[in-house]
Amino acid sequence: MSVQSPKSPEIPGYTYGAASHSPVSLAELEELKASVMFTNRDAELLRRAGQLLDGQVEKVLDVWYGFVAGQPHLVAHFSRPDGPPIAEYLEAVRARFGQWIRDTCTRPYDQEWLDYQNEIALRHTPEHKNETDQVGSTPVVPLRHLIALTGPITTTIRPFLAKREESAEQVEAMMEAWLKAVLLQVALWSRPYTRDGQW
Amino acid sequence: MSVQSPKSPEIPGYTYGAASHSPVSLAELEELKASVMFTNRDAELLRRAGQLLDGQVEKVLDVWYGFVAGQPHLVAHFSRPDGPPIAEYLEAVRARFGQWIRDTCTRPYDQEWLDYQNEIALRHTPEHKNETDQVGSTPVVPLRHLIALTGPITTTIRPFLAKREESAEQVEAMMEAWLKAVLLQVALWSRPYTRDGQW
Ligand code: HEM
Ligand code: HEM
Repeated sequence: MSVQSPKSPEIPGYTYGAASHSPVSLAELEELKASVMFTNRDAELLRRAGQLLDGQVEKVLDVWYGFVAGQPHLVAHFSRPDGPPIAEYLEAVRARFGQWIRDTCTRPYDQEWLDYQNEIALRHTPEHKNETDQVGSTPVVPLRHLIALTGPITTTIRPFLAKREESAEQVEAMMEAWLKAVLLQVALWSRPYTRDGQW
Repeated sequence: MSVQSPKSPEIPGYTYGAASHSPVSLAELEELKASVMFTNRDAELLRRAGQLLDGQVEKVLDVWYGFVAGQPHLVAHFSRPDGPPIAEYLEAVRARFGQWIRDTCTRPYDQEWLDYQNEIALRHTPEHKNETDQVGSTPVVPLRHLIALTGPITTTIRPFLAKREESAEQVEAMMEAWLKAVLLQVALWSRPYTRDGQW
């Protein structure tokens, strides 16, 4: 387990630093950062965003969980087939999701980070979904909804940043950095979903 | 060919209204719109954005083409393997890309639109890439870069909107609508790339 994690007390199933080696190379990551226009300035802006979001993570999660809970086609992937949502599953993922907000803002995007991106990707697909929390939910989160959720996951973060930062320009810059960081990760997460040779 | 197209004089290879039926249903489109939080208000905001962008489409394309041209791993997909960029390919796609900006802002997202989304998707994959312009470039645009380019395609549009709209709030609202529209399409375009049952 990594030591430089800002806030990762005991989060069940959070295996950052202990994930298998990613099949994606650091050179491919650099290309992908270039495609999404992610620069060192974005990394700095994310660090600042992380400070502003730090005390608000639970409130951000309330918004996102409310959004997912309100849509049957989304909450289905936290439920048993044709069953109700699995409360323990929602709770366990929520803790790791909160840590993901912190990681996205503060971690260096290095080999260890790349390895955990691969693990998060697999946890959305038949390879690892349900395993960490030992539940019997659907086998896969459909890729189209994974990509689409970049929308709400990005736009809903704005008021939380604006509450702590007066300069509209600064908020804007942090929002763009956040969007790029989420897109970068969703692009990485799409790998196990993709046909051979097309990723 | 459709008649209600705002500006589609003779654009070679632009087959809007004549594309094959999409395998995606309108019900699935509605779900996807919900996942990305796309509402009627966004459709209205896009219409307004379309008016502001109308005379600036060529300048927007200059920025995007400059971005792609500057990155070897991107421009490769407009080139012969290990060869230089194919000028006629870049030009032909550019005209359709300009029309796509207009379509994204003004078209109703109906069956005809869905059908052409499917065609655009296929044109990025081995199924139809290179066919329309009869060129010998790479067989596929890698999905990860398709997703990643949502970043530049979104963030670079802001100054063009801001130049024609004083209210920062309005610009912001149009930017969010644009982001959702691009994500919605990239989510649709990911379908032919995806393993069976995981899209
Ligand atoms: C941009 C979009 C998304 C982001 C940023 C995101 C983020 C995350 C994160 C950080 C985790 C926990 C990873 C860990 O175990 O450390 C996770 C798990 C999960 N997410 Fe997503 N997610 C997205 C889209 C979706 C969508 C659309 C669904 C569908 C409802 C979904 C359902 C799940 C489920 C069911 C898990 C638990 C997987 C498991 O069994 O381990 N996610 N997600
Ligand atoms: C959000 C990202 C992207 C958007 C919105 C986009 C949009 C478009 C549009 C509108 C077209 C023309 C469709 C038509 O024929 O009517 C097109 C074609 C094309 N795009 Fe993309 N694109 C994206 C990402 C990429 C990337 C990353 C590449 C890699 C360089 C790329 C390479 C191409 C190529 C080579 C064609 C021509 C395909 C053919 O042979 O017909 N695109 N794109």
